[in-house]
Amino acid sequence: MSDALTRLSAAFRMLPSVGLKSATRYAYKIIEMPQESVDEFVSAIIEAKQTIHFCSECGDYTDLDVCLRCQTADKSTICVVRDPRDISAIEKTGSYHGLYHALHGTLDFQKGITAERLRIKELISRLTDVQEVIIATNPDISGELTAAYVAQIVKSLGIKVTRLAHGIPMGGEVEYADEVTLTRALNDRKEI
Amino acid sequence: MSDALTRLSAAFRMLPSVGLKSATRYAYKIIEMPQESVDEFVSAIIEAKQTIHFCSECGDYTDLDVCLRCQTADKSTICVVRDPRDISAIEKTGSYHGLYHALHGTLDFQKGITAERLRIKELISRLTDVQEVIIATNPDISGELTAAYVAQIVKSLGIKVTRLAHGIPMGGEVEYADEVTLTRALNDRKEI
Repeated sequence: MSDALTRLSAAFRMLPSVGLKSATRYAYKIIEMPQESVDEFVSAIIEAKQTIHFCSECGDYTDLDVCLRCQTADKSTICVVRDPRDISAIEKTGSYHGLYHALHGTLDFQKGITAERLRIKELISRLTDVQEVIIATNPDISGELTAAYVAQIVKSLGIKVTRLAHGIPMGGEVEYADEVTLTRALNDRKEI
Repeated sequence: MSDALTRLSAAFRMLPSVGLKSATRYAYKIIEMPQESVDEFVSAIIEAKQTIHFCSECGDYTDLDVCLRCQTADKSTICVVRDPRDISAIEKTGSYHGLYHALHGTLDFQKGITAERLRIKELISRLTDVQEVIIATNPDISGELTAAYVAQIVKSLGIKVTRLAHGIPMGGEVEYADEVTLTRALNDRKEI
């Protein structure tokens, strides 16, 4: 392979889960594309990198100062997530219409991620008219720790705090659920 | 998602086998990368597209007029392939040291790909000092047809023509080989 092709293939390997084989295929595809498509590709990258930054309110990606959702959503509820990706996932359900708040990480003392490095102060300053804070961090050690930490602060302000339900996933089978999930599903059982 | 992110995600979907989910992950990754990495990414694309073209001799990708391999390889053998990708695959084996010739396609009358649209004239003009032409087109209808066509021309010039061996792949099992492969393996059996 020529130097330029090797360099391009190395560039593609910066993308998540792209190995040598895919990177090489992508590099060949770029060479084979008509010039207009390559121009569009490059200009889409440059435009996105230039215009997209974090919303100063919720921390999601936006090309505005305050994103459209923060401007128009129901302001009585705020859903706390780790990353903007989690916002996308919840938005796709279409069943939530309130505000979001991305912490940009979860507490992890081994990695040196303390409360000061997360957007917790920013969350507190947004709670003026909020009636409920839904905590939607992942159900892993770091996510649970962060949930407990945020919950304590929010409750001390007299605001209701809830956590996403955990249990057997829809379509999942009880037989194959892991012990932790099953224990959680038992403890959180609902009267029907 | 903002317009710029949607546009970037659409750009990534131009790459082979990249669906909506991967394209979105790649787009997010670009936003999260440090500016220097994005600059490197963009400049690698632009450089590759500007400098890489087909070698005027073998038809492989190169940034030279005649690629390094055409300049230095053993010129007594020429291996005929469909695409530059096939050259990469054979090069990786390290067991071939001769010239290559990419036809840039194989005969397919239904798709209107006739001999004139392939680099067959270019092949003939390269055969002056060649003692053997190895045909390495794929063992499918279009590849076999092209192999037969090229073989006929080359043989008429008094040059030896060979074809890559076909049969049970190494590590493959006779039990699971398809009938066509098994028939071929039987017909092409070698004395040991």
